[in-house]
Amino acid sequence: MPQSRSSSLSSSNPANAPQVRHLKALGDDTWKNKVEKVNAEFFHLTYGTIVAQLCEEYAGDYARVNGELFQIGYNLGVRLIEDFLARTALPRCDTFLKTSEVVSKCAFKIFLNLTPEVAHWNAARDSFDLVFGENPLAEHVELPPGASGQLWFSNVLCGVLRGALEMVQLDCDVEFVSDTLRGDMSTDIRVKLNKVLRDEIPAGED
Amino acid sequence: MPQSRSSSLSSSNPANAPQVRHLKALGDDTWKNKVEKVNAEFFHLTYGTIVAQLCEEYAGDYARVNGELFQIGYNLGVRLIEDFLARTALPRCDTFLKTSEVVSKCAFKIFLNLTPEVAHWNAARDSFDLVFGENPLAEHVELPPGASGQLWFSNVLCGVLRGALEMVQLDCDVEFVSDTLRGDMSTDIRVKLNKVLRDEIPAGED
Repeated sequence: MPQSRSSSLSSSNPANAPQVRHLKALGDDTWKNKVEKVNAEFFHLTYGTIVAQLCEEYAGDYARVNGELFQIGYNLGVRLIEDFLARTALPRCDTFLKTSEVVSKCAFKIFLNLTPEVAHWNAARDSFDLVFGENPLAEHVELPPGASGQLWFSNVLCGVLRGALEMVQLDCDVEFVSDTLRGDMSTDIRVKLNKVLRDEIPAGED
Repeated sequence: MPQSRSSSLSSSNPANAPQVRHLKALGDDTWKNKVEKVNAEFFHLTYGTIVAQLCEEYAGDYARVNGELFQIGYNLGVRLIEDFLARTALPRCDTFLKTSEVVSKCAFKIFLNLTPEVAHWNAARDSFDLVFGENPLAEHVELPPGASGQLWFSNVLCGVLRGALEMVQLDCDVEFVSDTLRGDMSTDIRVKLNKVLRDEIPAGED
């Protein structure tokens, strides 16, 4: 599924450059000095084993597997955001552009030691893609024969983003639009802002 | 459940000291320079979310949850051992004592950046415990009310050890015997050697 929309990197916006450098340094420093770490391969294999287990359990109902992975991610995201804000001490993002850079250069850096490219902004500037060279959780993975075209192997990440963004009042749709595991050129997650949840009571507080 | 057996650390054996130092250096160096890493909290929370999901799905049948976690671990272990041997280039252990040190100082170090104490050797020297201060996967975890005394939260680790050791011809029983999550003083995994599988064809080769 080749990308038809032209790439428009936010970092090509000169006004945004100092902020982007700052966020990159913040992400790099936090990753290097402020987080405990485990072996990435152990994490990837654990994740892959769990996806395989779900595929078996749901007997190839990949829509259900995708949903379950998303739900696991959502439950993670609503918890991870707290830790993320505590570690980075970042203020509220005043634009969705800044949100995209924080997600790429701080959040993905701090949790997975990855920095996906922010690309494919739409004209309304309320939707962008996170572009990964390879599928970030899928080293050593081969999909079962029937799964290609149906399973979004790393769908947990979409759930994490959905949950975390919701906790900072950003109601977003988050979904994979391509995956190297399916033979696509890159693995892309699309993040589309639906609305900013102003004046609402945060989940868990009443 | 306090430990009743006296502690007998293998590192108190002077003849073993240089080997232990070598293994510790090997583990430390491999962890530092030769493995990709991800955020430990992300891994812990992902694992915790999956355990919670299993508890819900199996409606509190904790024996089944323990079994499922063990099976996930076993599938991981039979794969991780290959990577472990490739990275460390360790030769076959000539004693079970050396095996215990390799598990503690190299394997746990390289995958989880932890070094559990090797303790509680039995008289026959075919059983030891890996002693963790706290449950290694369970930061931020609270068990559901009915789970305490039934769920072995980190049972995936027993499966990993069982699978990995089997692939190097060591048929072992691996099980938790205490867990700080259950109110015990420490979290201990017991590894008991049943037999050395000599002259058998390794799994997957025939």
